[in-house]
Amino acid sequence: MDELINKIKNSIHLRPEAEEFLYSISKEITLPQGEVLIRQGQVVKRTFFVTEGCLRSYCIDKNGKEHTLLFAIKDWWISDYIAIHTDELATLTVECLTKSKVIEFNAKELDGIHIHFPEFESYQRHNLERHVVSLHKRILNQLQLSAPERYDLFLKQYPKIEQHTRNYHIASYLGITQQSLSRIRVEKAKK
Amino acid sequence: MDELINKIKNSIHLRPEAEEFLYSISKEITLPQGEVLIRQGQVVKRTFFVTEGCLRSYCIDKNGKEHTLLFAIKDWWISDYIAIHTDELATLTVECLTKSKVIEFNAKELDGIHIHFPEFESYQRHNLERHVVSLHKRILNQLQLSAPERYDLFLKQYPKIEQHTRNYHIASYLGITQQSLSRIRVEKAKK
Repeated sequence: MDELINKIKNSIHLRPEAEEFLYSISKEITLPQGEVLIRQGQVVKRTFFVTEGCLRSYCIDKNGKEHTLLFAIKDWWISDYIAIHTDELATLTVECLTKSKVIEFNAKELDGIHIHFPEFESYQRHNLERHVVSLHKRILNQLQLSAPERYDLFLKQYPKIEQHTRNYHIASYLGITQQSLSRIRVEKAKK
Repeated sequence: MDELINKIKNSIHLRPEAEEFLYSISKEITLPQGEVLIRQGQVVKRTFFVTEGCLRSYCIDKNGKEHTLLFAIKDWWISDYIAIHTDELATLTVECLTKSKVIEFNAKELDGIHIHFPEFESYQRHNLERHVVSLHKRILNQLQLSAPERYDLFLKQYPKIEQHTRNYHIASYLGITQQSLSRIRVEKAKK
């Protein structure tokens, strides 16, 4: 929990009451590899701040194929935000790719922090603005870059992630087949 | 400007001073078809709320090919938010696809509203949350839907947009060639 508290303190003045509130609504949990925190089709109540390990959110299409929305490593948040903000059932599954440590919050309780401690509003707005920027970039990269260029960028953005992920995780994030990813890797190794 | 004021009033209590502030930092402008409001490579200072017409934001890749990030119609905001939030030069161009009316703001002045009138924080947070949801959906749809399915969804999301747009605008939003879009339309017409 200290990681998150320090992260917040780097951005805003955190009153002791607000810190206490955060502790009171959170739970640190250690999860084994393969643990599923949110399952497509179910109600979503929780959101997670990652302190160790690697998680991913993905959906399974009507043909049973997986598509990865994002990977979350240390200091990232992960949940199904479509479900949380629209009050719909999960369209995503969130699973641990490695043994992981996360801080778990009830999303509604965490949202209440803005009422009790309005200083969190600007902190959260800046988080959301940064997230919007990364999503705009992801869409533009998906549209304009070739598959090998997207793979190179992925390795820059997530330099340590390859050790935690399988081929199909990365392929399903890049929107290519596993065979294409293998070919790209072979070509890259030749250079 | 009344459209925007009413939209805000539907969500939060708008103090007369805040309304006055909004008027003082905004300018309503009418723009001809083809007008470019932001140009890739230049400094971005302005953000726009659309009250009439249709605009789009797009980037041009190293081969001169256009890729559309989004279309903005009545009640939407448009700018290059990557540039605004990272203080970089524009990676996007924003142009009017039709004669349009927009309310223009200096992005920094508009951001200042959160300091002068903190009640805007929750309003803006909810806007950003909705935008994140739509971007997550766009990424997942791009990954999991076939081109004809993406086109059908596009027509549902932007029911009146086809009359304002050319084939290559829509194709470059869907991430397909114009030839593919034409084939999809022919197939659709047969049904």
